[in-house]
Amino acid sequence: MSYTKLVLLRHGQSEWNKKNLFTGWHDVKLSPEGKIEAIQAGKILKINNFKFDYAYTSVLKRAIHTLWLTLKELNQLWIPIKKTWRLNERHYGKLQGMNKNQITHKFGKKKVQEWRRSFKIEPPALSTNDIRWSRFDEKYSKLEDYQLPLSESLCKTLERVMYLWKNNISTKIINGERILIVAHGNSLRALIKHIENINDNDIVNLNIATGMPIVYEFDSNLNYKKKYYLNN
Amino acid sequence: MSYTKLVLLRHGQSEWNKKNLFTGWHDVKLSPEGKIEAIQAGKILKINNFKFDYAYTSVLKRAIHTLWLTLKELNQLWIPIKKTWRLNERHYGKLQGMNKNQITHKFGKKKVQEWRRSFKIEPPALSTNDIRWSRFDEKYSKLEDYQLPLSESLCKTLERVMYLWKNNISTKIINGERILIVAHGNSLRALIKHIENINDNDIVNLNIATGMPIVYEFDSNLNYKKKYYLNN
Repeated sequence: MSYTKLVLLRHGQSEWNKKNLFTGWHDVKLSPEGKIEAIQAGKILKINNFKFDYAYTSVLKRAIHTLWLTLKELNQLWIPIKKTWRLNERHYGKLQGMNKNQITHKFGKKKVQEWRRSFKIEPPALSTNDIRWSRFDEKYSKLEDYQLPLSESLCKTLERVMYLWKNNISTKIINGERILIVAHGNSLRALIKHIENINDNDIVNLNIATGMPIVYEFDSNLNYKKKYYLNN
Repeated sequence: MSYTKLVLLRHGQSEWNKKNLFTGWHDVKLSPEGKIEAIQAGKILKINNFKFDYAYTSVLKRAIHTLWLTLKELNQLWIPIKKTWRLNERHYGKLQGMNKNQITHKFGKKKVQEWRRSFKIEPPALSTNDIRWSRFDEKYSKLEDYQLPLSESLCKTLERVMYLWKNNISTKIINGERILIVAHGNSLRALIKHIENINDNDIVNLNIATGMPIVYEFDSNLNYKKKYYLNN
């Protein structure tokens, strides 16, 4: 019985990860260390003879650039790539651009922990005239207002990611296509929650390392039979 | 009256351009100079405020990498990219991988000039058991044998490029989408022949500089109203 492999990869460190800022949908570039992580991920996949038929990523440059660097190492620049907002990081509302320590100082550790680690609670929402709202970003010009979050819980993130999984990714896996998904901490949490059927309380505590490929092997009924990490 | 812009860009110098080898469908990477040309093209487009809705490139890494470097400079990594074999370089048959001077020495200047610069004459064809045939390359696994050339004239290259233009690119331009096409000397010649209605004799002598964006502005009937180059 041969299984179909799916690889999940969290983008390398960004400039804002480095500065300890809430990022969410803010479109910040990889740090130099983040680029190295991406190249390293490509090397590990190459050493392990991974080949892909199709790749998915978000519309945020830290994920796209990680994917490009990975594919370049793999010598597979030519595979089709679908970039979609559905794989974007969770939207952090008004917290985006703010320092995590300062927020903790202002609102208290408990509140911040709730925003960061509860399944259904959303951080304070942007207002629709906030320049940080994605309505003012050309890359979302084809989307409707209702699709553009002002803030998101992990639960809401999961809903938009699941739409993509059910209508697109899962069909390809069933057809035997080898997929690489390069995305963000929370869009990957959403996928992992669904694939492994993890409950609401446990998923929020699952940490996903940057730049370390996670491999799932699926049978033809889309049940995963193996899971493992690729590292040095 | 506002016009819709189309930008054509020939990939930067490749490792084989540098070595003076016939390349065609052989998948060779950019030289360090080629990377600089690509970055420079991105900078020129950025200075001139170009924005794109969609990009096309071939499935060859020298073109894909040029596109990626250009989009990175433009800060437009997120736009959708279609990679297609229809934009590949002209297939040079048995000449692929051979040195241009040696070929000239062997077959004579006239013969080589004919292969390089006639509209309908094809260079000597590969045989179907030649390891250089694209049937043995995974990136073409979804194509039929008849689609995979053993050699091509510019005329044949034009046929496959025109299929893409008529069924895909032209519709987008009519819809007002701003398109960037990063491709090769001969696939771009084919496009330019069609757009400017250049005859068979003249098109073969048209030289397209690497890394220099060519801009066409179209009216809504797909007639081009302006053509210009972007350079330093």
